[in-house]
Amino acid sequence: MTVPLITSLQNPQVKRLVRLRTRRAREEEGVILIEGAREVRRALGAGVQLTEVFLCPPLFSPEAAALRFEEGQVTHLTPAAFEKVSLREHPDGVLAVAAAPQPQLADPPAQATVVVLHGLEKPGNVGAILRTADSVGAHAVLILGRGADPYSPNVIRASQGSVWQVPTVPITEDAAWAWLARHGFRSVACTPDAPQVYWDAPLTGRVALLLGTEHEGLPESWRRTDEAVRIPMQGSADSLNVATAAALVLYECLRQRRPVDSSVNSDA
Amino acid sequence: MTVPLITSLQNPQVKRLVRLRTRRAREEEGVILIEGAREVRRALGAGVQLTEVFLCPPLFSPEAAALRFEEGQVTHLTPAAFEKVSLREHPDGVLAVAAAPQPQLADPPAQATVVVLHGLEKPGNVGAILRTADSVGAHAVLILGRGADPYSPNVIRASQGSVWQVPTVPITEDAAWAWLARHGFRSVACTPDAPQVYWDAPLTGRVALLLGTEHEGLPESWRRTDEAVRIPMQGSADSLNVATAAALVLYECLRQRRPVDSSVNSDA
Repeated sequence: MTVPLITSLQNPQVKRLVRLRTRRAREEEGVILIEGAREVRRALGAGVQLTEVFLCPPLFSPEAAALRFEEGQVTHLTPAAFEKVSLREHPDGVLAVAAAPQPQLADPPAQATVVVLHGLEKPGNVGAILRTADSVGAHAVLILGRGADPYSPNVIRASQGSVWQVPTVPITEDAAWAWLARHGFRSVACTPDAPQVYWDAPLTGRVALLLGTEHEGLPESWRRTDEAVRIPMQGSADSLNVATAAALVLYECLRQRRPVDSSVNSDA
Repeated sequence: MTVPLITSLQNPQVKRLVRLRTRRAREEEGVILIEGAREVRRALGAGVQLTEVFLCPPLFSPEAAALRFEEGQVTHLTPAAFEKVSLREHPDGVLAVAAAPQPQLADPPAQATVVVLHGLEKPGNVGAILRTADSVGAHAVLILGRGADPYSPNVIRASQGSVWQVPTVPITEDAAWAWLARHGFRSVACTPDAPQVYWDAPLTGRVALLLGTEHEGLPESWRRTDEAVRIPMQGSADSLNVATAAALVLYECLRQRRPVDSSVNSDA
């Protein structure tokens, strides 16, 4: 079977892939873009079904050359065409299209952490938070409103595959509050002006951790939460990176839930 | 007083500034480069003495336009010349030269945390660790061997000014061990294969936290430490970002050192 080869920058597929770099075009088509050999390998490992694969063998890294795809899925592009559709400065010749995930919110267990992100824009921060949420076994990550697209190629990359592991759900503010209330989550806002330090807050049971942007923080309507916590600051720094703050509170949840017999040396 | 204007890309100052983008050239001259209005403002706020300032008013951001410098310090560059010397994709027209800092290791207080970095290369990670070290009031950050230059323009930027607040000291491995031993530091290696979880380790007193790269971890010679700790991983993620791991252990030091009366609600 011959693999089709696209050579023209005016090819309709090239134009479509360029359009798909915008969130709006991806949403209209109901697809996501996954770029990079490592990212595609992780998606496949997580069971993501690719619908189309665009490859440029002359640009392959060793990791890209090792990937195998189903017959009939693959289209080849010349380096000029691939570079036009790539989001990267140094593409490795692997770009895939998949149907947009429809992650569902399952009923939470008795001990459950949900991360709620409001207005975060930077893919690096969202990806890092997904990675940490995965590390602590979080139940879900809720993305409110029109912040970062959690399935943008850059978030997929920054999450290092964790976006496939933790249900990552774009959701409206109302739907999020309703779901959290229905399941008895205690809401904990992380905000620099909270009087309580995070390690002093009770963080067992079902906990929803609310995080806003570094500059704007949480909206006023989100300040009526069950708890508000801050990260103590000792030096001249005025605030921590939001992904760092998220990691501290998420791991404090884990620490407070640890089995008692693992705590023999703590607080020594 | 007329400000000199450089228009030629062949100007010797332009060529020198291009060379100074390498660590080697900066070390030969004994200087550092600080690029960006925010970074220069923070350096000035921390008392850093600039020796030369290169500006390109047509590229100014509002923050850049608000900066004021001493007469005689400033040279103007045309946009083409400035873009040639800039390290950024979208320069804001501010670049300064200062003498290389000579941070000293002061005698530590009874409760002191020192961060020791081995082989870290990514400026973003080193900068994030400096920012967290500042947030917890760390005594110093030691950079071993030939890892990232802590005074590279990219680390300066990523640290958001914290590099000026926490003594950040490039040092040989032998000198680091000698200083830590002389001051009675307990060494704590953070490594994924440690049996002990970080919150179970005693982290009060003088603690030196050792961190290596995500992929290579710590060298064998560094594994004979007083404690080794790991970050527990619940999900599919295989390791945390090194800056996230650093934040967790550094804040656990702070938590264990908190005054007892602030702990009334903890472990609830």
